Amino acid sequence: MIEPFRIALAGLGNVGGGVAQILLTRGAELSRRAGRDLQLVAVCARDRTKPRRADVSSIPWIDDAVSLAKVDADLVVEVIGGEGEPALSLIQAALENRKAVVTANKALLAVHGAQLALLAEEQDVPLRFEAAAAGGIPIVKGLRQSLITYGIDAIHGVLNGTCNYILTQMEATGRSFADVLAEAQARGYAEADPELDVGGGDTAHKLSLLSALAFAVPPDISAMRIEGIAHITPADIAFAREFGCRIKLLGIARRTPAGLDQRVQPAMVRLGTPLGDVDSVFNAVVAHAGAAGPFTFEGRGAGEEPTTSAVISDIVDIARGERGPAFGWPAKELRPILPAPPEAHLSAYYLRFDVRDVPGVLAEIAGYLAKQDVSIESMIQRGRSPGEPVAIVMVTHECSETAVSRALKAIVTSDKVLGMPCMIPIENG
Amino acid sequence: MIEPFRIALAGLGNVGGGVAQILLTRGAELSRRAGRDLQLVAVCARDRTKPRRADVSSIPWIDDAVSLAKVDADLVVEVIGGEGEPALSLIQAALENRKAVVTANKALLAVHGAQLALLAEEQDVPLRFEAAAAGGIPIVKGLRQSLITYGIDAIHGVLNGTCNYILTQMEATGRSFADVLAEAQARGYAEADPELDVGGGDTAHKLSLLSALAFAVPPDISAMRIEGIAHITPADIAFAREFGCRIKLLGIARRTPAGLDQRVQPAMVRLGTPLGDVDSVFNAVVAHAGAAGPFTFEGRGAGEEPTTSAVISDIVDIARGERGPAFGWPAKELRPILPAPPEAHLSAYYLRFDVRDVPGVLAEIAGYLAKQDVSIESMIQRGRSPGEPVAIVMVTHECSETAVSRALKAIVTSDKVLGMPCMIPIENG
Repeated sequence: MIEPFRIALAGLGNVGGGVAQILLTRGAELSRRAGRDLQLVAVCARDRTKPRRADVSSIPWIDDAVSLAKVDADLVVEVIGGEGEPALSLIQAALENRKAVVTANKALLAVHGAQLALLAEEQDVPLRFEAAAAGGIPIVKGLRQSLITYGIDAIHGVLNGTCNYILTQMEATGRSFADVLAEAQARGYAEADPELDVGGGDTAHKLSLLSALAFAVPPDISAMRIEGIAHITPADIAFAREFGCRIKLLGIARRTPAGLDQRVQPAMVRLGTPLGDVDSVFNAVVAHAGAAGPFTFEGRGAGEEPTTSAVISDIVDIARGERGPAFGWPAKELRPILPAPPEAHLSAYYLRFDVRDVPGVLAEIAGYLAKQDVSIESMIQRGRSPGEPVAIVMVTHECSETAVSRALKAIVTSDKVLGMPCMIPIENG
Repeated sequence: MIEPFRIALAGLGNVGGGVAQILLTRGAELSRRAGRDLQLVAVCARDRTKPRRADVSSIPWIDDAVSLAKVDADLVVEVIGGEGEPALSLIQAALENRKAVVTANKALLAVHGAQLALLAEEQDVPLRFEAAAAGGIPIVKGLRQSLITYGIDAIHGVLNGTCNYILTQMEATGRSFADVLAEAQARGYAEADPELDVGGGDTAHKLSLLSALAFAVPPDISAMRIEGIAHITPADIAFAREFGCRIKLLGIARRTPAGLDQRVQPAMVRLGTPLGDVDSVFNAVVAHAGAAGPFTFEGRGAGEEPTTSAVISDIVDIARGERGPAFGWPAKELRPILPAPPEAHLSAYYLRFDVRDVPGVLAEIAGYLAKQDVSIESMIQRGRSPGEPVAIVMVTHECSETAVSRALKAIVTSDKVLGMPCMIPIENG
């Protein structure tokens, strides 16, 4: 019989508790899959006295997270979270001690991923993070090991369940972003500080990892343009439906002749497409894999069980002997690709202007757009009560983001236009 | 530097040619991913003189497929196809010679998969077949390595591109099955002998492999009920739309308290769901992975590039050192699960009766259904020209397949009912 595979677990929150429980209750079955006996040999969390679902009383307890790297184990699971300490020091120490590492920590990997991948390869131990992007969806393995033959042209993903839940609820109820967010917070679907989710940062963390896997670049959110969903109104969502679309917060990474286009932004996506139809807390990723075509992966993107599922799959892979670089490509050869400039980004755009209902307003807006060669494909103008502001909504033909931005900059100077116009690209997914 | 990884390739058709071309043109990049130099060391095909896209003139040529198992190589790729010889003898000989095997051969694995997996494990070499189910979609790896934590409850798949193309075209054009099939054959989208595709056999082959991976059973199509799409009419497809559904040929494998339910059959699937929206030559698989929830995989299910993509991913995995049992579970422990009896299969059903437009016909049909406790949720009766046959279409509440079958058996004895009624389950996917 092969030696047992010894696992040390840092973090006993929802995910850590789930991992411990699975190892304790389904360990025998998973060991048969791994071909080795999986043993949980040490655990560590902040508060030893906290009641937990998994009974870890028989497992040696380590108080200091970083010390977990020194226990007699083959693998350290880091599910503490947070981009800083003690997670970072634990992972570094574990790799330095030639232990394999499995982590669900997207924030940390988005910042330190390239350096940790390098350390893992120097030490010749695997570093795995299936749970760090799109929860239970095996998109990390898909990009690292499956869709490698023809290269990846583009990735489009709905990667944040909180945003998708909020947008889905806004559509279902017609209520405002602020209202739906407050309710989501009350129900525990959104964090007390929601900025990381609704501001697009969490999507950017995940996208940076998928981008690294797809394009052999170091994860780097500073190379991205990041926009959240707080400015989306129920009116935009209702207009989207009139154009056969939904608004989704997308993470987009795309290789273009002008460079690598990496963006997090709300986009219009057609109904009847995988990204247009992904509802509520589900995530979906479309990977355009060259001549092999587009592949879609959909599933639960967060929560205890999907995340646990991804962590466990990494553990079993490593126990079975799975090796190879963290980002699928030798870490020392990951190279940044120049970001594509905004003028290289061509798309059709949805534009909404709130205007005073006075003669000449449409002519003025249309004039500024024409001056930038932005041509209009369709338009909706909806009257409200006399004297009240009116929404003018347009969909443009394909044009550059820069041209639209320039036109909008001029348009907002008009005293007939109220507040900031809304500008949302229409993406094909 | 690690030893090069030597590959022998049997079959130079679309897929084999694609694999050769990728190894020759993208071998350097793939070698970096594998951490070893990938070398194509021998090829074999029926006709040496045939012009091919990949220039294999510099690669040693072996005339006899089975002899390829004896060349100095680490891995044999079998893309000859066919469930019998020489593919079977080649794979056996390769495994006996302790060479890893990658095959795209679903028909062969559906029959000999359990025995070959056993041989591979006895010889301690990997046997991989990502390309054998759903083309480029990484569902084999997904079930073997990713969705293992909570077990699989059910798999639903659209697994045959030819059938999906025909059904999609029937919907788009309103034309008959025979018409659309003839055109698909003329265009090369369907085989001259289409029975394996349209009769459901190919879907059954693929489903048997997914079922083995999901439920640790030996692949076994004899345990399945298999029904094709030849009896589906444009009228059924049009009625499906009225109920918000599409008709898809599904492969279904589901663990039930009464046993393992494995079926290939046309089913109504709701629009707006992944299986309802998968069009034309695309495939999709929904895997219900216990508490981790449903996961959907979608992409091109056939064709040179998607299949090549899957074969190459297996090659690179094995070169990197990937091991573990072919079906994710030790082969000698694969155990059949008793098939679920038809009476255990509960579903809502779509029923279409072509009837003579005479008084009492509805009462008679409804009476036979009531006698079997089949209750009706909704009904459409559409008048045609006087004297012509009329279609009566019903959707039942959930009931057992046996009850509906019994009722239909009685109903067809009526002289008011013309031909065989059509009975299609409504599946949630």
